[in-house]
Amino acid sequence: MNDIEAILAELRKFNQERDWDQFHNGKDLAVGLSVEAAELLECFLWKKPEEANLDKIREELADVLNYAFQMADKYGLDIKQIMLEKIQKNAEKYPVEKARGSAKKYTELAQE
Amino acid sequence: MNDIEAILAELRKFNQERDWDQFHNGKDLAVGLSVEAAELLECFLWKKPEEANLDKIREELADVLNYAFQMADKYGLDIKQIMLEKIQKNAEKYPVEKARGSAKKYTELAQE
Amino acid sequence: MNDIEAILAELRKFNQERDWDQFHNGKDLAVGLSVEAAELLECFLWKKPEEANLDKIREELADVLNYAFQMADKYGLDIKQIMLEKIQKNAEKYPVEKARGSAKKYTELAQE
Amino acid sequence: MNDIEAILAELRKFNQERDWDQFHNGKDLAVGLSVEAAELLECFLWKKPEEANLDKIREELADVLNYAFQMADKYGLDIKQIMLEKIQKNAEKYPVEKARGSAKKYTELAQE
Repeated sequence: MNDIEAILAELRKFNQERDWDQFHNGKDLAVGLSVEAAELLECFLWKKPEEANLDKIREELADVLNYAFQMADKYGLDIKQIMLEKIQKNAEKYPVEKARGSAKKYTELAQE
Repeated sequence: MNDIEAILAELRKFNQERDWDQFHNGKDLAVGLSVEAAELLECFLWKKPEEANLDKIREELADVLNYAFQMADKYGLDIKQIMLEKIQKNAEKYPVEKARGSAKKYTELAQE
Repeated sequence: MNDIEAILAELRKFNQERDWDQFHNGKDLAVGLSVEAAELLECFLWKKPEEANLDKIREELADVLNYAFQMADKYGLDIKQIMLEKIQKNAEKYPVEKARGSAKKYTELAQE
Repeated sequence: MNDIEAILAELRKFNQERDWDQFHNGKDLAVGLSVEAAELLECFLWKKPEEANLDKIREELADVLNYAFQMADKYGLDIKQIMLEKIQKNAEKYPVEKARGSAKKYTELAQE
């Protein structure tokens, strides 16, 4: 079993044991994911990037990932596939010759 | 190579080709992740969960996952390990006998 | 003195007494605002709208408003003016004859 | 009529003309507010605070404020009152003698 399947198996077991699947509609999963993303973001509030606490980042990032995996599972999406497809799509959107280089260029491209 | 490593390899290649690693500090990655989580959330705005567009969910969820994977990679965190550890931690926080059951119980537990 | 000026005066006094203006750059104010918006959102996680706790909503909404007012003040923006201008802009974007009516229409318009 | 009442009057008129009050439940207003806060945050992505575009900040901040005002109105909350009460509460939480001074102190206090 590959890594992603192994993690999904643990998430499914966790939810089944608690009979929590009934509450996991897509909207609340998206709400939960946004809340966890904000808790991760809070690690950096009023700080320089390098001042954030790594243990806290580790924990909040794990929450984000667990919600994101549950959301993919809810909709039957293949995590590896959708991620690789998006990378490919971004590669076309930001071609190397156009995107390579200065922060300014990067910023402008990222804003498009 | 397992799935997670394969995805990380693609993300690293994408960033190296564009020389974008220099911009990927933890704070902006956390900002980007929050922005993408909100775009995913927007799929559900003013809607019932089942009314959201799956193609849009697929795309925004892929963005969230790509940022989350890049953040883990930035800090050298093992994605599978931190996710499984968090599931274990949650299993202790929400023991089956206490958590199993009604939505009301679930809501209260989730708020703790 | 009108209401908005009275609130801004209190916020300025609070920050000056603590010498906190030096930390209030726009980026961290925007981060703080997103974090507080997520805490407000969390009041509704796994709940129907009417199940959320009003005392908690009241407190988190106040945090959101305080950050938003400080951000406006930071950039010298006139709160009343920018809000009324945006309402006017939205009125043109969603003309009454087009927008009035069903939830379906509303959803599609709001997604544009 | 004071400023806040004048703004609320415009928001109410806008929604009544479009018959949109029926869609404005607290949960979706909180979702909308989070989405707008993220759009404001996006102005600063990959940028130093001073590099963000003021016109964009102005517009996104107005969206945040308009959602926040509508939310207060939805729950019958007095905006000035809840904001001043929260400032007072924060003043007790961060007493001047303890909070005044270095960024380090501020960061630690803000994380509590």
